[in-house]
Amino acid sequence: MTRVWSRRYAKRTLRMTSSAIRELLKVTEQPDVISFAGGLPAPEAFPVEEIAEAAQRILRDDGPRALQYSATEGYRPLREWVAAEMRAANVPASIEQVLITTGSQQALDLVGKVFVDPGDELVVETPTYLAALQAFTPYGAQYLSAPSDAHGIRTDAVEPLFARRPKLLYTVPTFQNPSGATLSAARRARLVEMAAAHGIPIVEDEPYRELRFQGRHLSRLISLEARRRGDSSDYRGGVLYASTFSKVLSPGMRVGYVVAPAEVIVKLVQAKQSADLNTATFNQMLVYELAVSGAIERNTKKVARLYAERRDAMLAALREHFPDGASWTQPDGGMFLWVTLPEDIDASELLEEAIAQHVAFVPGAPFHPNGGGANTLRLNFSNAAPERIHEGIARLGRALHARFPSAVPA
Amino acid sequence: MTRVWSRRYAKRTLRMTSSAIRELLKVTEQPDVISFAGGLPAPEAFPVEEIAEAAQRILRDDGPRALQYSATEGYRPLREWVAAEMRAANVPASIEQVLITTGSQQALDLVGKVFVDPGDELVVETPTYLAALQAFTPYGAQYLSAPSDAHGIRTDAVEPLFARRPKLLYTVPTFQNPSGATLSAARRARLVEMAAAHGIPIVEDEPYRELRFQGRHLSRLISLEARRRGDSSDYRGGVLYASTFSKVLSPGMRVGYVVAPAEVIVKLVQAKQSADLNTATFNQMLVYELAVSGAIERNTKKVARLYAERRDAMLAALREHFPDGASWTQPDGGMFLWVTLPEDIDASELLEEAIAQHVAFVPGAPFHPNGGGANTLRLNFSNAAPERIHEGIARLGRALHARFPSAVPA
Repeated sequence: MTRVWSRRYAKRTLRMTSSAIRELLKVTEQPDVISFAGGLPAPEAFPVEEIAEAAQRILRDDGPRALQYSATEGYRPLREWVAAEMRAANVPASIEQVLITTGSQQALDLVGKVFVDPGDELVVETPTYLAALQAFTPYGAQYLSAPSDAHGIRTDAVEPLFARRPKLLYTVPTFQNPSGATLSAARRARLVEMAAAHGIPIVEDEPYRELRFQGRHLSRLISLEARRRGDSSDYRGGVLYASTFSKVLSPGMRVGYVVAPAEVIVKLVQAKQSADLNTATFNQMLVYELAVSGAIERNTKKVARLYAERRDAMLAALREHFPDGASWTQPDGGMFLWVTLPEDIDASELLEEAIAQHVAFVPGAPFHPNGGGANTLRLNFSNAAPERIHEGIARLGRALHARFPSAVPA
Repeated sequence: MTRVWSRRYAKRTLRMTSSAIRELLKVTEQPDVISFAGGLPAPEAFPVEEIAEAAQRILRDDGPRALQYSATEGYRPLREWVAAEMRAANVPASIEQVLITTGSQQALDLVGKVFVDPGDELVVETPTYLAALQAFTPYGAQYLSAPSDAHGIRTDAVEPLFARRPKLLYTVPTFQNPSGATLSAARRARLVEMAAAHGIPIVEDEPYRELRFQGRHLSRLISLEARRRGDSSDYRGGVLYASTFSKVLSPGMRVGYVVAPAEVIVKLVQAKQSADLNTATFNQMLVYELAVSGAIERNTKKVARLYAERRDAMLAALREHFPDGASWTQPDGGMFLWVTLPEDIDASELLEEAIAQHVAFVPGAPFHPNGGGANTLRLNFSNAAPERIHEGIARLGRALHARFPSAVPA
């Protein structure tokens, strides 16, 4: 018997594809390639010493607990810490509104598992976060694309999509991946109001929020929703808030969280129970230690300063090496910026030339679930020192001129 | 607007229920309750010192890598270590056949995501592992129950079920959870042969295999399948093998693995990518360090000796305190044994009385996806010292006599 596995796969498996970004990452691991393709935090900024000290303390004082199974909901002190953070943001959250997840990617997977039936329509911004599409697509999601600009998702374009009664809206409002754009205060207010009027839940994904280089923090959508509702004790609004410790501490720990009404948390807990029982206990205790000691807050400031320098280096290099017909976002924080090339340039073609020149990026098309974006690309600025960024953008400029001499006069 | 979340849930969400076991665990956390309900390893046996030393070494020598994102497939040296273990078991595995998962629960979830369409029939033994049902059910699995006895799943009962062309067969062949039974060598050979003849994949879940107290190891189903096929380089057979470091090292680490043909691993990797990107990097490096240093092997021997004493204590106490009409399995390893009470005794009713007497267990019915087993129950013996086990079984015997005086003459 020859066993043909492909005949045994579930229908949803046929919808799953490997992330273009992660496949690319494999090609660009050689040290002579300058890669702006990944989404990696700067490893030199990880607070290794403080993590090592916390690990020793936890194993010495509470080893058996750290190494044992734990509640699916998460480590209670960490849930309480998250709830307190949310209360500080005027969201009346208790631990019943908090679930600890295995990174915020798991939060997206659990949302897909709990909410998405095959054929369900989800509203997403364009471009949108690729790994969110990968989380929702296996459950059969279809996408309604709302265009976005330098101020985030265009609420005027969302309104007619809400009339189609989508299952939910997914957005990264702050320093978005991939665009770097931040939703304006006015649009935040409008979006929350519209979602409430139409009864459409919002999934607010905020991994980059704390990596702000300049300007002041804008209210979370969940805070605006809580204020609108006037809940005084428990949060019961229509915004699910997901975040992570990956960008402010360490992604290798895989600790994230969701804040949502208690009845939704109950369902997400059931989904998580069948997914991985609980997030690694030791990792949750480590994150908690570093949260209460203030190490995460200190580290976040350090990381934001580091990334601000790198963003500045990239913006300066783009001005120097990129042609007049190209434009790019100027993010106030986060890890990414977004380049729009002249209309007749295909970023996938450019990538071939770029890899020949030992520089890499991610073409923008995969971030557009319903097509478009062929002349766009994402650049990550968190994972290379300023000199490397300068050299990489110079290479990319050379690749542009080499491949598209007519579109891009030297 | 009152937002009714329940109207927004996906259909699969309605099939999800909270694990009765985990809900029970919450009730039985008080220290005056002797609980045989959980499935917790003995925390006093965790090699805390060795883990603490390894954690320091890893963070000192390779901190930035340990704290960074890593490949979805898993930490390469750990994959290689698993592949070498498999080759020692005569399975021709390279790292292409290995995926590291966030505990073996994630392996089951990924198998469900990749293989199970709504309405698909899966063959399971009876009783079967509850968390496997919880992993497969949200994807719409239906179950064909094959009875099992003291020698595991009854292959004569499997044969007619294979004629119905189920999607796959799921089994825990060694020291099964919940029954403690081990599939005999003859039935292993027969099962592999039948599955090959019918083209039905087997999911072999082996978390307890190394916790053997007596007797000799039996061949894994995947080894028998590899031998049958005579693959010389890559394993391409129809058995997916899942295991974990939870029972031999620490469940709080959440590190497990799957061994399967490379083309299946590719699909499982796509599913994992959307589920949690990668298993915690630091945790994988820790497990690898302890695997190559021999610490896991030493710890496994220690744990097996400890659990053997506890099994002996439980068997002695059952003989002393349980009535003649009751019978139970005598496992050669693992963490559980299975009690069958006189037919007219309902284990759920007994549980109410038991909790009043400050002792807990899990009724057997939930382990039967198609009904039955009302007079059965699962007892865990790994998580209490022999004296506590003796006292707990005495309490359970008293509960039996108190609640069912006619069925169980004193």
